[in-house]
Parts: sequence; structure tokens; C-alpha cells
Amino acid sequence: MARVLSHQVPACAGQHVRIAGWTHRRRLLKSVAFLIVRDATGLTQVVVTDPATRALVEGLTEETVVEVTGTVAANPAAPAGVEVVDPVVRVVGEPAVPPPFDLYRPSLAATLPTQLDHAPLSLRHPRRSAALRVGAAAVAGFRRSLDGAGFTEVHTPKVVASATESGANAFTLDWFGRPAYLAQSPQFYKQLLVGVFERVYEVGPVFRAEPHDTGRHLAQYTSLDVEFGFIDSYQDVMALLRDVLAGVCEAVAERAAAAVATLGIEVPRVPEQIPQVSFADALAIAGAPCDELDLAPAHERAVGRWAAAEHGSDFVFVTGYPMAKRPFYTHPDPADPASSNSFDLIFRGVELVTGGQRLHRYDDYVAALQSAGQPLEPYRSYIDAFRHGFPPHGGFGMGLERLVARLVGAGNVREVAAFPRDLHRLEP
Amino acid sequence: MARVLSHQVPACAGQHVRIAGWTHRRRLLKSVAFLIVRDATGLTQVVVTDPATRALVEGLTEETVVEVTGTVAANPAAPAGVEVVDPVVRVVGEPAVPPPFDLYRPSLAATLPTQLDHAPLSLRHPRRSAALRVGAAAVAGFRRSLDGAGFTEVHTPKVVASATESGANAFTLDWFGRPAYLAQSPQFYKQLLVGVFERVYEVGPVFRAEPHDTGRHLAQYTSLDVEFGFIDSYQDVMALLRDVLAGVCEAVAERAAAAVATLGIEVPRVPEQIPQVSFADALAIAGAPCDELDLAPAHERAVGRWAAAEHGSDFVFVTGYPMAKRPFYTHPDPADPASSNSFDLIFRGVELVTGGQRLHRYDDYVAALQSAGQPLEPYRSYIDAFRHGFPPHGGFGMGLERLVARLVGAGNVREVAAFPRDLHRLEP
Repeated sequence: MARVLSHQVPACAGQHVRIAGWTHRRRLLKSVAFLIVRDATGLTQVVVTDPATRALVEGLTEETVVEVTGTVAANPAAPAGVEVVDPVVRVVGEPAVPPPFDLYRPSLAATLPTQLDHAPLSLRHPRRSAALRVGAAAVAGFRRSLDGAGFTEVHTPKVVASATESGANAFTLDWFGRPAYLAQSPQFYKQLLVGVFERVYEVGPVFRAEPHDTGRHLAQYTSLDVEFGFIDSYQDVMALLRDVLAGVCEAVAERAAAAVATLGIEVPRVPEQIPQVSFADALAIAGAPCDELDLAPAHERAVGRWAAAEHGSDFVFVTGYPMAKRPFYTHPDPADPASSNSFDLIFRGVELVTGGQRLHRYDDYVAALQSAGQPLEPYRSYIDAFRHGFPPHGGFGMGLERLVARLVGAGNVREVAAFPRDLHRLEP
Repeated sequence: MARVLSHQVPACAGQHVRIAGWTHRRRLLKSVAFLIVRDATGLTQVVVTDPATRALVEGLTEETVVEVTGTVAANPAAPAGVEVVDPVVRVVGEPAVPPPFDLYRPSLAATLPTQLDHAPLSLRHPRRSAALRVGAAAVAGFRRSLDGAGFTEVHTPKVVASATESGANAFTLDWFGRPAYLAQSPQFYKQLLVGVFERVYEVGPVFRAEPHDTGRHLAQYTSLDVEFGFIDSYQDVMALLRDVLAGVCEAVAERAAAAVATLGIEVPRVPEQIPQVSFADALAIAGAPCDELDLAPAHERAVGRWAAAEHGSDFVFVTGYPMAKRPFYTHPDPADPASSNSFDLIFRGVELVTGGQRLHRYDDYVAALQSAGQPLEPYRSYIDAFRHGFPPHGGFGMGLERLVARLVGAGNVREVAAFPRDLHRLEP
């Protein structure tokens, strides 16, 4: 008999079925015992009255893998509206050692460090796995939007010869006896590939050796990167990002509907036009001094509140950041060279995306590096490409874990990464 | 006027259009000049008769980005059946330095090392970019097949605390002052996540510090990994792999049709039942001594020829490899413990996929590590998970570049990676 998954059980009323999964919970009442079986798609209630089966269920430990055959019976009082009766229960594998925390409670009571120490177990909690499912759906929506817009998916090197890609610190490694670095972003490569495919995206790990010990930084995270050519201005980049975000939210609602329900969250609506504020106006909204060169987290929260109050939007663009705080490849605003053709997207008060137009002329790269006091040689294979015909282009990058944390209302990105890596954590 | 892409031009006969792209080639005849513009979707022929425009085109260098407005005229003699006449040509950006090799010839004449040194340019050759498009379509097909079968996409750590995952050598790095290693595969993590999602896949980079200098090894490659639980035997894994390969080939034919045509390749047909031979029979087919413990490349080629001749199949499974040559987590064949419940898939004479059933009992892991003379401690966070309820499971891993090289008939995986990394190459 083919196995039936939990989410299929309600459609099988009256049928004899086989289910399998983990012993999520047992409730041993006087006249009846309930065995709750958890599988990839949810929970199924099994009703045990037969004494021999009851004895077996009494001896089960939480997380033991079981297989149950029985008959599906409608019961409006059961959580799924159905339950499995007259069961035959069989242990698969071996009896489990119960986890150090209860997986059947609505939330995990263990502290986050304990959860992370026992990630293979804590991720089995329906709320923890639901957050990762939201992430998988978000990535699927990201790709679907871009595939539909003629983008090509690429895979770029994660080990590079020089630590030049961003202001972030790089991890060093030994590459067959030569020093090398983990890539801090696919920035240079995605730009080079605009020369090949015009429109590219990548989903992959990036590495930041910044000793940040905050709830929004990881030393490895999954970066969603986009770059495309033949743009007229960085407004084209923001327009594409708006559509990608709409595709992401649509995919989360569609593909992770059960996870969204488990988490009790609301998938945001992406407005047709995401509100924009200039960097100067953002400072004013946040009550920050007008000579600040960047937005502090508190300022981002203030701008997020403003967007929610004034525009009913969870999203807001801040445009025209000072060049002084943007990387050298950023295209300045021709009308105001101290200002950049770049933006951040703030989602529910947290910076989620950074993007903009890039330089596309070789001479501009040379000038930008020289004025930054940087040598050209480490950048040679990158900047040389711009001598061989390059269109105006731009793009953006977004951290998956930060996106998911905001979507599911997690206070710490570590709650939405399977096996997070940070300053202190290399295991499991 | 909105830009029209090359592949849309044939549908625009009689219309005034704007195209843009790279100066792929110029042919300056006496009475007429042809400008071939390359964009992400192909080539468009522009016909120049006006003296001023001709003077501009004569001064163009290959790869200069141009924008052309003109009228689309049918011409059966033109490569696409249409051409753009009465053009106005404008240089976008700045005149390009011509590349060190001709991109307009049917194949790149430069040696592979020269192509790789100039990857941002050589990838612009239509055959090189077509191979990467085949790869992107293959990955899309991989995901689509697995999404349809209830798998969840995951992202696992690429930096790990111990170099335990495979027999391969690991790159060492400095993680905030602690030694760490680049992950050689997501093997342990994908197994752990079977405990969470039952069915998982990952597309991501893996790193092998093996000093192989061959046409089928890279030090970083893109691994397509699958793992799933509640299997009855490793035949379930082979059945899934068959369906995934069919989905991959279907996606290549559908989504990369233009690239397939550019390359002049035939997408393989995946038989409903991929032929299987036992390891012992494979040795006999290859004429190898019956006490060999692995198949050498020449043996794989022989088995590939056998499958083509006897079964008309580009694919063949070799099953039951000796345990002696399989990693410790491999499930032995209960009927013959020296043999494993594992397989390789040979595609057109090259090993493409390795997979099988894994151990799922904690005690079996302890015994396997002990008999391999390995300490338990480095494996602790991995093997402990098997104490907490684990179903029988299995999976497989496949290298994207090796798959694409076989699909497009490339002799070297470096031809189908955007920016390959190997013993000698860290740039570009």
C-alpha cells in the first residue's frame, strides 16, 4: 500500500491507508490513547484503543519513526477533521532518544543558542521548518520573476585572488599553497556576465568576516543577486526590484501557504509604486543631522514607520546615498557628483536590498580607484572588461535570511538559517 | 521607442525598431556595409548604404556597444530572414578595444588557457555562452522535477569545523582565528535535513582540494544534491534520479532551444528504465580483472559503449560497488556486506552521478566509523542526529559542469564553467 502524507489524509475518509513519520506527541488518556504522527506535510492523529497497540504506543519515545496503517475516520473534533482508527503501529529504524526540548509545544521553549546547538532537532519544530519553507518559496519566486524577464542564472567563483569586492572583511584561505579569499559578493562577476548575457542572477553563499554579533548579520548568508544591462537609469533597477519583490511575495503565498498558516503571518502587499524618499529627506524623517553619510538602524526604523503611516507600505526606497559611503563601482549622479545613482530598500524598518547603477566606462573605473587611493592591479581582470564594450548597467543584492526574518517576524536571522555561521558558531 | 531584441526582429518586418548590442562583425563591401549586432538573444544584420553612417561603421571596433534604429525589411538571403535598413547608428558608452581573438568566427581559435585568461570576453562567443545557457536550463529542470515531487530547497554551510565529509582533500581557512574547512559536499547536512523535510535538494558550490589536473575535475564546482527519506531500497533513489534526468533533458530542450541549435547538439532521450549492470558485470564488460574495487575511466567508457550498443541508452547504472571504495555512511547490502546499496550513473561513458542508500541507525554509524579506524568526535553533531529518529534514506550528487560538458560534447569541464577554479587558476 502506497504511503499517504498527512496533508492527503483528509481526502481519504473511509479508506484504509498507510502513513509514516515521527512520533510528535502521545496523549495517554484512560480509555483512549492518541498518537500524533508528524511528516513533511503536517500532523495526523491516530486513535488507539486496542490494548496491545496501546502498550506499544506507551513505550514509544518522542521522535521515534513509525509507520501506521489504519482507517481514516471523520471526526470534527480532530485537528485535521479526520483521524486514523484501528491502527497497526510499527517502529521504523530504532527507538529515538527524546530531544532535549519538546517539539510538540506551540513554540520552542529552549533559548536560541540551545536550539542552534541542536539544529538537526530544533529545525523539526513546525515553526522553525516553516520559516525555512518560506525561504525556499521566496527563492523560487525570485527565480521565476527573473526567468520570466529573460535573465540567465549563473554560478560564480566563491574563492578569489584578492579581497577587493566590498568594504567587508574577507576570510583568508590556502589555495594549493597560495593565499586566497572567500568571495564577499558576486558583484564583479555578475557585472562581467552582463557583457555575456545582458541579464543575470545568482543565488549563492557569500562570506563576510565582519565580527558583527548582531541579530541581522551572519558570516555566511545566501545572497540573491541581480545585474542587467542597457538600463536608462537606476530607476530601471528599482522598477525591476519592485516586480521581483511582488513575485517573491506571490510565491510565498502560493507555494508556502501551509507554512504561512503555521506561522500566522501576513504576506506583505507590494505596492505598484514603492514609495521613494531621497537620502536627505530620509535623514529629516528620522530626525538625524543633515550631514550624516549613512542611515543608522534607528533611522531605518523611522523611515519604515513613515512609509507605513504615509503610504501604507511595508517597503520604501531611499535614493541618492552619498558617494562617500558607496563602493567605488557606484555610478555618481551626473547632476550632483557627491550623490550616487544608488538606493537601499527598507522592508519593515530594516535595510534589505542595496542596489544602483554601476560605472560602465573603463576610464571612470580608473579614476574612481585612483581617487579612492586604491591600486589598479588587484582589479585588473575586472576593470579591463570595461575596455571591451560595456552598456550602462545596474543591479542589486539581497540577503535571503534577512528577507525571511522580516517576512516571518523573527528577531534574529539565526532563526531562519538552517545551520547558521557566525563569529562563534561553526557547528553543527 | 522600446528596444527590440534580436529574436523579436523577424516578427517586426515593416516596422521601425530600436535594437542595441555589441558590434559582432562588420563586412565592408564596395556598395554596401553590413553591421552585425549581437545581443543576449542572437544576431541582427544591419544594412548600411548612407555614406555618413558607413563612415561611422567603418570606424567602429568589434565589441563596441551600439544602438541602431531602422526599419525591418524581409530578405530571404539574410541569416534571420530579415535585416534592418536605413539605420541610424549610435555608439553607447565608448569605443571598445577589440578582443585578442575573433568572436565572430564559428569557433574560438584561441587555446583554452587563453580563453580562460580572457573569460569575460571569450564567454561572449555564442558557443561558449550557449553552453552556460544549457547549464542554466539543466538546473531549472533539476529544480522543477524535484519541486514537483515535494522536495524542499535548502542552503547549507560551506564552511565546516572538520574535514570529514568525503575522502577528498579540503581547503583550510581561518575562521575568526580558528581553523576551518571548505565543505567538500553538503552530504551530512542534506541527510540531517531529511529529518526535517523528508525530501531536500541543494544547488551550490563544493570545494575539492585534490590536485587533479584533468579535463573532468575542478576545485570548485556546482553540485546538484538530493536526499530523501522513507525509501524501501536504493532502487527508489535510482528511480527518482531517472525522472530528474528526464526533467533536466526536457528543460534543456525547452528552455535552451536556441543554445541547443547554436551548438548543434542532440539532447539525449532518457529511457523509461535506465539499464543497470552490477559492478561485477561492469568489470567483465570492461575486460577488467574481477578483483578491481573501482572502475577506471577507461572501464566507464567501455560500459558506456556497452549501454549504447546493447540498450541504445546514453545512460547506464552500475550498482553494488564494493563497500571498500564507498564512504562510511553508505548502506551495505544486507545479503552481501562487502557490497553496497549504492550506484554510479555513467552518462556517455563518464561517471556523472554517485548515490545510494545511507546508514540510518546510530549504532551502524558508530560501527562503521570504528571499523574505518576513525574517531567519533569530529562526527558527533552529525551522527548524534541518528539517535533521534531517522527513516531509511538515500540520495545522490551530480556535478553540473560534468553534466553540461557531456551534454554539449565539451572535452574539458573548464569550457562550460564561467570562471573555473583549479590547481593553477584563481583568476579572473
